[in-house]
Amino acid sequence: MILFGIDIGGTTVKIGAFKEDRTLIEKWEIPTKSNSVLEDISQAIHTFLQKESISIEEIYGFGIGIPGIVKDGIAVSCVNLGWQNRNIKQEFEKALGFQKPIIVLNDANMAAYGEAAFCDLKLASAIFITLGTGVGGGIIVHNQILEGTMGLAGELGHILIDSTYNFQCSCGAIGCLETLASTKGMRNLVQFYQKKYSTRLILNESLTTKDIIDAAKEGDPLAHQVFEEAMNALARALASLSVIINPDAFIIGGGISNAKDFLLNTITKKYKEVCIKQAQDIPIYLAKLKNDAGIFGACAYLIQKKFEVERNGKC
Amino acid sequence: MILFGIDIGGTTVKIGAFKEDRTLIEKWEIPTKSNSVLEDISQAIHTFLQKESISIEEIYGFGIGIPGIVKDGIAVSCVNLGWQNRNIKQEFEKALGFQKPIIVLNDANMAAYGEAAFCDLKLASAIFITLGTGVGGGIIVHNQILEGTMGLAGELGHILIDSTYNFQCSCGAIGCLETLASTKGMRNLVQFYQKKYSTRLILNESLTTKDIIDAAKEGDPLAHQVFEEAMNALARALASLSVIINPDAFIIGGGISNAKDFLLNTITKKYKEVCIKQAQDIPIYLAKLKNDAGIFGACAYLIQKKFEVERNGKC
Repeated sequence: MILFGIDIGGTTVKIGAFKEDRTLIEKWEIPTKSNSVLEDISQAIHTFLQKESISIEEIYGFGIGIPGIVKDGIAVSCVNLGWQNRNIKQEFEKALGFQKPIIVLNDANMAAYGEAAFCDLKLASAIFITLGTGVGGGIIVHNQILEGTMGLAGELGHILIDSTYNFQCSCGAIGCLETLASTKGMRNLVQFYQKKYSTRLILNESLTTKDIIDAAKEGDPLAHQVFEEAMNALARALASLSVIINPDAFIIGGGISNAKDFLLNTITKKYKEVCIKQAQDIPIYLAKLKNDAGIFGACAYLIQKKFEVERNGKC
Repeated sequence: MILFGIDIGGTTVKIGAFKEDRTLIEKWEIPTKSNSVLEDISQAIHTFLQKESISIEEIYGFGIGIPGIVKDGIAVSCVNLGWQNRNIKQEFEKALGFQKPIIVLNDANMAAYGEAAFCDLKLASAIFITLGTGVGGGIIVHNQILEGTMGLAGELGHILIDSTYNFQCSCGAIGCLETLASTKGMRNLVQFYQKKYSTRLILNESLTTKDIIDAAKEGDPLAHQVFEEAMNALARALASLSVIINPDAFIIGGGISNAKDFLLNTITKKYKEVCIKQAQDIPIYLAKLKNDAGIFGACAYLIQKKFEVERNGKC
């Protein structure tokens, strides 16, 4: 059987064709055109099937990650694509012209499942947290993606951390993790601390996390303070999650994970300082699959669901 | 079939005998003697069986809640009873003298399952938070109790809320929910604010949550401020949980829930103010089963597990 993992992003759609043993047959990308994206994916799938001489009978199904709030296959809200309350499962089935199992989930949730499933250890529960322009995440418990009653589970950027700085989040709240530990958050911190230190950082829209981390590594005092505060916020979020979900592992992804050991050593040390002592041994890993996490996760989750259907279906 | 729900507390053990349709046959209590508690429970069960002429064949199993950290039937740590790394499942089986399914879990987790399962609505996911001397809790997702990799899931008293007050928790961390929203926490807040207001509250070890809430209702300005701050902390915890677990409902129990509408109106208003707008409609309920939540939860969870065993066992 062949499974497709599909990750719809704001600019490109990643598509992966997998065998049932989770090995990748081929992956490719097509541009995201918001008015025809599902038809374009369907077209790409049909072209692939023809090229590889694969029949529709050989397809098990499709896992699709989309950048927004998803509940029961409905894109409740997906700002980047201008979608609201659209039944993606139904629409994609129509575009395909045939019926197969389709799972639609939030893209960070799919990526979380990918990073957990393809981790060297077998993780039945994991928390994936991605630090980029914003902060996103996904939670796996009992080998299942946690979707939540409104599709909001794993929206870890909106964990309330600390109101000390009084930074307002795009969601309206004060002190969300995203206001401190994302690129936007680190810019907030640069602004907050910039009068206190001499620095080579220039605060503008092109200031990246990489710029800040590179400067911190080179001893820039402002960059150092900003990175420390961002990591303090992340450590407090992980400490709270350690007593809420108490996962097998934390996995950190997104642009910031390129800082590798510098990030991992700092966050591991800070986490151990603030968590309760019984939770100190929860390991923190860096994401491995990166941009491919979504398609690998969608494939692995489809296989997990296939297994469950087969097990329960026999009853 | 007969099921037993057992809730081991620091001073008494509650025992409930249930039918398979979750109706209670009888409930009673025995004193907790930490050096013979499992034997005492076994003795009580045998006495009940004899009195009711119930044979061992008619028993489905036992659900046991204990006041400590539990993982895979092992009491990892149970300070009140002086237990550490004791295999309760095995020891209770030995005390009973016969083998039946036994589930051992943390008492707050069992209570959480009870409050969710016996709620008027059918809740597949819920967060139970109990405010008493300390703060405890339990989390239900996909109809399962979340135990966590170390048995720490649902230890909601140690969610890190705010370091503004710099209150240290018994766990060592600064700013845990318990340092603000428990009886201990409210005493911290009384001490912090007492110079600011004239008040009739007297800060000592006998000052209860009820005293503070009663005074707040009567317009005592210190009591009002303390209650507001405790509820702000709780609201921030619920807001974070709304984007982590995104449960079907929050359920509040413990001594503070006796304040009923005064509590419910305040926390509901504050929650809606700080949560992201998509999560505003998650309902907040007061616990209904109270002291019986543990035995009812143990019974309901045993039945859920029995159902799963039967379903999967046929495959």
